[in-house]
Amino acid sequence: MLVVGQSASFTKKVTENDINAFAEISGDFNPVHMNEEAGGKSIFGGRIAHGMLSASFISAVLGTYLPGEGTIYLSQNLQFTKPVYIGDEVTAKAEVVEIINPEKGIYKIKTQCFNQKDEMVIDGEAVVKYLN
Amino acid sequence: MLVVGQSASFTKKVTENDINAFAEISGDFNPVHMNEEAGGKSIFGGRIAHGMLSASFISAVLGTYLPGEGTIYLSQNLQFTKPVYIGDEVTAKAEVVEIINPEKGIYKIKTQCFNQKDEMVIDGEAVVKYLN
Repeated sequence: MLVVGQSASFTKKVTENDINAFAEISGDFNPVHMNEEAGGKSIFGGRIAHGMLSASFISAVLGTYLPGEGTIYLSQNLQFTKPVYIGDEVTAKAEVVEIINPEKGIYKIKTQCFNQKDEMVIDGEAVVKYLN
Repeated sequence: MLVVGQSASFTKKVTENDINAFAEISGDFNPVHMNEEAGGKSIFGGRIAHGMLSASFISAVLGTYLPGEGTIYLSQNLQFTKPVYIGDEVTAKAEVVEIINPEKGIYKIKTQCFNQKDEMVIDGEAVVKYLN
């Protein structure tokens, strides 16, 4: 049983290899992710990581730390608030904010990602089921 | 300029290699994704793909087909409605459903993923900015 206020975080550096591998897995070869020139010409001023790559760190927190093994991922909303560049260190934070249904083990979890300058790059919430 | 009703889709088979690589990139090594035994003991009855892996196919549609290059991903919500297993073929579909702000190029796009049995595995909506 989780309690409101319980929290966990996970930090990972985003490498060029990560972005290339994520493009292969996802099929998203948008040039802004794939080469420095296209990134440089874009509004972002440089090659950026896929938003879903940073979002995947939220999956890591929920799936391995809070709640961890046994978590069933019901929903997630994501606001991509700032770009993430190669070499950025992203910290995904999860905090239980509401027990939606204690019998069914349904929880609302605030999920946010920050870069190494503590700027929020993703804001959002997840709903998970966890009966352990 | 996009018009309401415009749509695109992208299909990809989910392999064991994809799941292993996604775990490395994301840091999500939840056993339900990593080994058949843990998956078999879970409510899912088998090893399943990370929800965010299937969600990444939405990123592929938006980033490479509709709207494509120049897309700025503002937000995404995801409901994970069914599990995706190794070998499943997932089709991500995107359809423009609302022009939120024509001057700023802000659009709401319905984003859904289906498996090879045409069962919906992800439901949701994205908001993107696209000025091309």
